[in-house]
Amino acid sequence: MRDFPAGAERDGVCCCLRRWFSVCVGVCDGVMAAFRGVWTQAFWRAISGEFVAMLLFVLLSLGSTIGWSDATPPTDAQDAPPTTAQPPDLVLISLCFGLAIATLVQCFGHISGAHINPAVTVAMVATRKLSLAKGVFYVTAQCLGAVAGAGLLYAITPHSVRGGMGVTTVNRRLSVGAALLVEMLITFQLLFTVCATCDPRRGDLRGSGALAIGLSVCAGHLFAIPFTGASMNPARSFGPALVMSIWENPQVYWVGPVMGGVLAAGLYEYLFCPNPRPKQSYALVASAGAFPCAFGEKQPPFTVLDVDRAERLDRREREPTGEVLSSV
Amino acid sequence: MRDFPAGAERDGVCCCLRRWFSVCVGVCDGVMAAFRGVWTQAFWRAISGEFVAMLLFVLLSLGSTIGWSDATPPTDAQDAPPTTAQPPDLVLISLCFGLAIATLVQCFGHISGAHINPAVTVAMVATRKLSLAKGVFYVTAQCLGAVAGAGLLYAITPHSVRGGMGVTTVNRRLSVGAALLVEMLITFQLLFTVCATCDPRRGDLRGSGALAIGLSVCAGHLFAIPFTGASMNPARSFGPALVMSIWENPQVYWVGPVMGGVLAAGLYEYLFCPNPRPKQSYALVASAGAFPCAFGEKQPPFTVLDVDRAERLDRREREPTGEVLSSV
Amino acid sequence: MRDFPAGAERDGVCCCLRRWFSVCVGVCDGVMAAFRGVWTQAFWRAISGEFVAMLLFVLLSLGSTIGWSDATPPTDAQDAPPTTAQPPDLVLISLCFGLAIATLVQCFGHISGAHINPAVTVAMVATRKLSLAKGVFYVTAQCLGAVAGAGLLYAITPHSVRGGMGVTTVNRRLSVGAALLVEMLITFQLLFTVCATCDPRRGDLRGSGALAIGLSVCAGHLFAIPFTGASMNPARSFGPALVMSIWENPQVYWVGPVMGGVLAAGLYEYLFCPNPRPKQSYALVASAGAFPCAFGEKQPPFTVLDVDRAERLDRREREPTGEVLSSV
Amino acid sequence: MRDFPAGAERDGVCCCLRRWFSVCVGVCDGVMAAFRGVWTQAFWRAISGEFVAMLLFVLLSLGSTIGWSDATPPTDAQDAPPTTAQPPDLVLISLCFGLAIATLVQCFGHISGAHINPAVTVAMVATRKLSLAKGVFYVTAQCLGAVAGAGLLYAITPHSVRGGMGVTTVNRRLSVGAALLVEMLITFQLLFTVCATCDPRRGDLRGSGALAIGLSVCAGHLFAIPFTGASMNPARSFGPALVMSIWENPQVYWVGPVMGGVLAAGLYEYLFCPNPRPKQSYALVASAGAFPCAFGEKQPPFTVLDVDRAERLDRREREPTGEVLSSV
Repeated sequence: MRDFPAGAERDGVCCCLRRWFSVCVGVCDGVMAAFRGVWTQAFWRAISGEFVAMLLFVLLSLGSTIGWSDATPPTDAQDAPPTTAQPPDLVLISLCFGLAIATLVQCFGHISGAHINPAVTVAMVATRKLSLAKGVFYVTAQCLGAVAGAGLLYAITPHSVRGGMGVTTVNRRLSVGAALLVEMLITFQLLFTVCATCDPRRGDLRGSGALAIGLSVCAGHLFAIPFTGASMNPARSFGPALVMSIWENPQVYWVGPVMGGVLAAGLYEYLFCPNPRPKQSYALVASAGAFPCAFGEKQPPFTVLDVDRAERLDRREREPTGEVLSSV
Repeated sequence: MRDFPAGAERDGVCCCLRRWFSVCVGVCDGVMAAFRGVWTQAFWRAISGEFVAMLLFVLLSLGSTIGWSDATPPTDAQDAPPTTAQPPDLVLISLCFGLAIATLVQCFGHISGAHINPAVTVAMVATRKLSLAKGVFYVTAQCLGAVAGAGLLYAITPHSVRGGMGVTTVNRRLSVGAALLVEMLITFQLLFTVCATCDPRRGDLRGSGALAIGLSVCAGHLFAIPFTGASMNPARSFGPALVMSIWENPQVYWVGPVMGGVLAAGLYEYLFCPNPRPKQSYALVASAGAFPCAFGEKQPPFTVLDVDRAERLDRREREPTGEVLSSV
Repeated sequence: MRDFPAGAERDGVCCCLRRWFSVCVGVCDGVMAAFRGVWTQAFWRAISGEFVAMLLFVLLSLGSTIGWSDATPPTDAQDAPPTTAQPPDLVLISLCFGLAIATLVQCFGHISGAHINPAVTVAMVATRKLSLAKGVFYVTAQCLGAVAGAGLLYAITPHSVRGGMGVTTVNRRLSVGAALLVEMLITFQLLFTVCATCDPRRGDLRGSGALAIGLSVCAGHLFAIPFTGASMNPARSFGPALVMSIWENPQVYWVGPVMGGVLAAGLYEYLFCPNPRPKQSYALVASAGAFPCAFGEKQPPFTVLDVDRAERLDRREREPTGEVLSSV
Repeated sequence: MRDFPAGAERDGVCCCLRRWFSVCVGVCDGVMAAFRGVWTQAFWRAISGEFVAMLLFVLLSLGSTIGWSDATPPTDAQDAPPTTAQPPDLVLISLCFGLAIATLVQCFGHISGAHINPAVTVAMVATRKLSLAKGVFYVTAQCLGAVAGAGLLYAITPHSVRGGMGVTTVNRRLSVGAALLVEMLITFQLLFTVCATCDPRRGDLRGSGALAIGLSVCAGHLFAIPFTGASMNPARSFGPALVMSIWENPQVYWVGPVMGGVLAAGLYEYLFCPNPRPKQSYALVASAGAFPCAFGEKQPPFTVLDVDRAERLDRREREPTGEVLSSV
């Protein structure tokens, strides 16, 4: 009889342990599931692709902002007399940023999805196209790439012309709130372009997606360089800021692009072009509002009961390749 | 017998009432038919798409016209000595207008058709690709979007550099008639490009339609900014004019683009590339002149007697999706 | 017996007349054959398309060369102090020429083939893609369109800024021979681009043909404006020259582009990418050298004996639609 | 018996001769195999295509670097007062280089693969897409074309404006090592773009490959003209250097681009997007690491035993057409 309470106690401890164990297993499973697809070769290829792409982007585009105005350029050094200081050529800078993005999206689109921008990565995580764990790796690789690119540019640029080296600063006549709004707006249009261009359901697009995204970056720069330096990319602002140790309003260049990007991706995915499939497969949402998108869904429909296929589709969506490629 | 006249009278009244009733029903039906497709979610998505697109377009493109010449830009603020006032960089402004349109057509083409221009909407109504009722909603949304965009730009731009904020004004050396003609001509080429690019019968087009339309806008600006400010878009002129309360020759910016646009769409649809199908399905036009277009009609032919199919095709053409998408 | 000589004579006369008649019929047939396809609605649509396209091209592109430097532009008229005279912005002019061509080829490619250039038309005639008779109509329409466009621009441009209105003149430091060579070279690359882009045998092209041709025009202008004004288009030079009555070295702008264009089209068609089909169908060339092109011929092969099919293909090639479209 | 040693000796000599003969035959076979595909009409067409393309590229793009600043341009010669010396317009030069490459790749892509750059040819040889023998012919043709183009430009350019005629020189404030690094980096992004654009396994590319490569060249120039003159092309540097007899740091313009190009092509082919097929057909590599690329292999798989097909595929890959086209 005395044992019984002990047995009961032991049973209670066992039960408790068992519960804890199952919780632990569940957490481990969750963590494993979260990091599923991270320990593959394809993912590390994607991560290194993001690093290389960000390095090249920061190097090329920041390099175009250098003011060589008092340097005699090499092409007709003999002819040109020393010229007076000139304002930076905004068309040149905007084209360089835009064409560098267009080129790198063309290069790395099929390798890493060519985010080359933490705002893009956060927006993809927010719209459940990329897992949080992978997003963390992506953003880390982008920031490292930006620092490496800015450091490399610092090393190869002569000290006399280095100047601000493309650090984004808010125009002194602008309030921080207005600057934040400008960054939000230009990142909004960039992310909306990314979502609209990479939407696999669209059948009406013929031209180059990389060029469309690059020209969106170019348009944003043509508008916003005098306002905020036109970052629309936290890592692009972080790299030179760390290298030059200039920290002016970093919140503008992290909060603005991320908010604008998440807002654009959310509006696109849930308001303008909602995807009817997840609702069907999870049956979480009442089927009252069907929200059919303006273009025909190509994939054949399937019922909620077709669990295997839903699982399969779901898994396919979460696998590195499909996931990453979805943003090309 | 006395009743008979009364009965007859009553019958007459009944008949009259019945006729009135049927007329009313007919009118209601007509109105209902006119507004058919307006009370759908897809249509309001399209309307809000037009609003957002116009807001972004006006904000980005007007922002590029701001003369910051006496402001030290942020990218190399340390290096650049104060520069003298500079003329606006027409290449920058033209590229910003063109690339903004290219980007927004890429973004909203499948949502609203991406008119982003009352002249486009009026031309679509004139060539019976959009119902009048929907056209009214579109133009309203565009004007509201333009006012919101101009207001937002007004709020975020420092007062000292605001200037004319991109209000389109006729060059003082130009007569109003010449300005009207310039606006007509540049809108003519824009609408011709829109019609030729979005023609579903063409099979020879490979590149991006959005880029082609954007580059057409860019070419128009490169030519016409010194003449009239290159509006080719009544709403783009209306927004900043309302915000700044500058009303110079508004008729140039409403009549010119609308006339040029309707002329281009009419010439394209009825002279250069007439569509043989409506004539067949309605049999309103004598079959003497067949006007086959230079490219092969892909859809299989059908006879006039196939009324159901004609009706079905006709209905499909008038439904929001097909209708709106027809101008992407 | 007396009659016999007379009869013989009469027979001789008859025979002679009959021969003459048959020759006449042959000539008439030849002329009719030469003009076959001219008296069709599609052809006149093409001709009017060429006229409208040339008018718009000359108007837009010449308009961009106007030097408004001493005019206060309308966009920020209040802010800008009077600026000193500026050199023309070659990027602006080159982009306007290039994008206007890109836009108009997009617009009229399926209507007239969008030659918009007598050098293109002559090269098409030289490589037997267009009949001589049609070529004459095309060149006439282009010249009329250029004159109309230049006249319209003359009418709407204020006298004080009109200047040379884009008349192409040879740089005073250049010899006429060098100018001729420059025009030949830039037209050579344009026509080579046209031939390579419109080659129906190529399956490796994905982008917009209109944009590729427009960018070729743009590249030619970026190089050659300081040399010769970068015409590469006799009609574009003829229009403003007639309107302004400035005739400087017209031979440079007719002979240079035509020679360069014919050379490019000839080299492309007969040296770099010879078409094996005509040789097979006419059997004029010994079959020793097969000259297969670098890309696979898509159409199924046929033997020389299959005369009907050869005739049919041949006729299809000469018919207005196929013929004109071949240069899109 | 005496004959036996002699016979043995004779046999030994015979054997030795036979061995030598077989070695000679083997060497000859090897040489023949190395030069297989060289003595064909298609290859010489490709070689002459490279020559013409390089000539046009050097002529057009170097021509845009000429400083005409003290020349009154022809377009509004009457209006413009003599202007002061101006710095070269980097946007103009970058666009001219980029659009010239875009145009010439469009023109010669199907004829020679449109390398127009020894760095591209060397990278193709290094990744076994082109045989060494053919690579030598290609580079020779490119260098001859560049010299011809520079000589032609020298002949037609007036002496007073000729200046440095686009010879690439390292900015005096830059060390040679930094210049080498800059050339490496910009050629790296160019070759990565070429490899990614011409990868036949990619199915996600829609836009023009020629334009993508041209815009990559343009982005490189926008960044690097003030650093090194932005060569990224040894032949483009060799041509004007020979004509002007200016030899400044030629190693920068040969070693930098070639190293950057080979590195990019190697990383792309063996790290980022390894091709699983050669491993299968030769079975040289253990099948441990499968390295599947991020995109689906379209061609049906085949086993190693299917020797004929492997041989056939292998031969096809080495044949001039497939080989050369692989880099379009």
